[in-house]
Amino acid sequence: MIQTIPVQLAARGYDVCVGPKLLDEVGPRTRRLVGGQAAFVITDSNVGPLYARRVAASLTEADFVVRVHDFPAGESHKTLATVAGLFDRIFAAEIPPDRDSVIVALGGGVAGDVAGFVAATLLRGVAVVQVPTTLLADVDSSVGGKTGVDHPAGKNLIGAFHQPRGVFIDPGALATLPEIELAAGLAECVKHGIIRDAGLLDWIEAQSHSLIAGDEELFGELIARNVAIKAAVVAADEREAGERAHLNFGHTIGHAIEAEAVFAAGGPGDLRHGHCVALGMVAANQIAVRRGLLSGDEAQRVEALLAELGLAVRRAGVDGERLLGIMRRDKKARGGVIRFVLPAGQLGRVAIYDDVTDEEILDAIEYLA
Amino acid sequence: MIQTIPVQLAARGYDVCVGPKLLDEVGPRTRRLVGGQAAFVITDSNVGPLYARRVAASLTEADFVVRVHDFPAGESHKTLATVAGLFDRIFAAEIPPDRDSVIVALGGGVAGDVAGFVAATLLRGVAVVQVPTTLLADVDSSVGGKTGVDHPAGKNLIGAFHQPRGVFIDPGALATLPEIELAAGLAECVKHGIIRDAGLLDWIEAQSHSLIAGDEELFGELIARNVAIKAAVVAADEREAGERAHLNFGHTIGHAIEAEAVFAAGGPGDLRHGHCVALGMVAANQIAVRRGLLSGDEAQRVEALLAELGLAVRRAGVDGERLLGIMRRDKKARGGVIRFVLPAGQLGRVAIYDDVTDEEILDAIEYLA
Repeated sequence: MIQTIPVQLAARGYDVCVGPKLLDEVGPRTRRLVGGQAAFVITDSNVGPLYARRVAASLTEADFVVRVHDFPAGESHKTLATVAGLFDRIFAAEIPPDRDSVIVALGGGVAGDVAGFVAATLLRGVAVVQVPTTLLADVDSSVGGKTGVDHPAGKNLIGAFHQPRGVFIDPGALATLPEIELAAGLAECVKHGIIRDAGLLDWIEAQSHSLIAGDEELFGELIARNVAIKAAVVAADEREAGERAHLNFGHTIGHAIEAEAVFAAGGPGDLRHGHCVALGMVAANQIAVRRGLLSGDEAQRVEALLAELGLAVRRAGVDGERLLGIMRRDKKARGGVIRFVLPAGQLGRVAIYDDVTDEEILDAIEYLA
Repeated sequence: MIQTIPVQLAARGYDVCVGPKLLDEVGPRTRRLVGGQAAFVITDSNVGPLYARRVAASLTEADFVVRVHDFPAGESHKTLATVAGLFDRIFAAEIPPDRDSVIVALGGGVAGDVAGFVAATLLRGVAVVQVPTTLLADVDSSVGGKTGVDHPAGKNLIGAFHQPRGVFIDPGALATLPEIELAAGLAECVKHGIIRDAGLLDWIEAQSHSLIAGDEELFGELIARNVAIKAAVVAADEREAGERAHLNFGHTIGHAIEAEAVFAAGGPGDLRHGHCVALGMVAANQIAVRRGLLSGDEAQRVEALLAELGLAVRRAGVDGERLLGIMRRDKKARGGVIRFVLPAGQLGRVAIYDDVTDEEILDAIEYLA
């Protein structure tokens, strides 16, 4: 069964479709959205060998002239240099791109962000469809129109908002996803529960064993529920002027941990974005507990669930002062003020706080150590 | 006297201000639009030494922390590599940019396009104010939100729509503008007359001597009239889905001539964008004359006016077949169909034609030779 979740935006909404074998339907479904001739599939060196052929065949079947361009997998290649290289290859095509061309973003968050940014800036913007293949991309980055690349000074510092025309999610692609990536995606699902839907937390707790075992149908349901939450938040605040910031729960400290790991330590090691968000959520919950915004029991419940899903909830050697410095430079900080999203009285509701002190932040990071 | 022309857009309109000494008012006028702390002035190596100090002083006065970054002047530096270098310098600032920062684009069309693209993609979009210093930028590129860079495969192939928060035009800056650049700007003014306002053509004809002599007050009037035309067209069609294409009158063949000169011949020589547009207008008018859409007298009148303004109306050695190939690859061609904007019955009105034959195009180019 294909589930369709609409993302209702002022200018042009789009549908997120979730269901089995969608990888083989990318062509006809894209054809319903785009009239052009050329389709450029952008993917990475991990996902390309697994799924690019199926997607390209489906696009060819739907009368697109298809070119597949991949780039080396990994966050370290999410750069302006990678984008420049893709432009060189796209413009070298026999059929040059025109404004009716479409970019097909195939892969995880990095491929989606890079391909989305290419689409945002190719001829001042062409259509993009997102075909995510990781749980994190399924429930988070493929929906909402954030695109971009990293800079040595920080993650996602260069980019654009560019909404996709459609998102096609085949949970079958998760069969090839390493466990560590699955856990990273589950962290964002827990986040969605904390910010909007305590019932989702109950459901994940109840299904955690089957999810870890990789039940495809169950993943379809999980993805659809999470996309619905993300879609509602994005629809309410497309450009992150207000409510959309709620999605940053766990990301303030999480991003800093990630930035330090990737850029200072020279590589992410076993740490994924989702793992950092899990740590960030644990720390944020501690701030909330101390402020009386969340009970100690609820914070413990979240920790237990994250651990059950295979996510670390402690991290040795975190350096509070250093992370504070990174947070102040984060693009979400305005005038150096660090904003926190915290549970507001209970799980399932959050609010934004601008008055968290350095001491509270340092204590929360200390808790992780 | 400061004239203010509103650009009325659905999401967020802005004002274009034209008047003497506005270079010294950039700070307070930007402060009314932007609340942030950091202002990054982006300019080129020609304009920076002339005007960056005045603009920076005005911004400092208005409580901005100002950094000035310049790049080598010239279309050949309108590249992704230049943008990457600017990002490196922006992120190296002691006060890192945040979402309330502002980019101040100071200079001609290249500086405006590059700085605008940096603003469009810095932290997924920060505010930009345009401070154009050439006639071409005054009446054309600073208004309308087109930003971007070139690629070896063609002009403006990489970019984004990103409307400025404000545009401040000081006609006094034209005092330092080489004559060849002034003529290039006047070509776009003639274009505006042909597509929307036959009265403007009369006015330019009547004032041509004083304009060429560099009368600053007269230039203020000329700029305000032209900005009003451009603003009306942009307001009716922000993303170039329809009517905005009228602004491309003269650009179909003009762009091809420019592309050949810049990219094939290794440099623009004495040819500026406006000069190419002038040639393109002469050629387009010939197509219109042959179709009975314009009288031969009117076409001659335009040619005489362009020549009077110092613009070439013939070009030796143009290669029709080669230009045709370039036109088919232009980003405005869809599915290889070359679209022409042509006068529709009289000067002051144009329409779009998709059915111009190769033979008509080749004959028109032949006319230029």
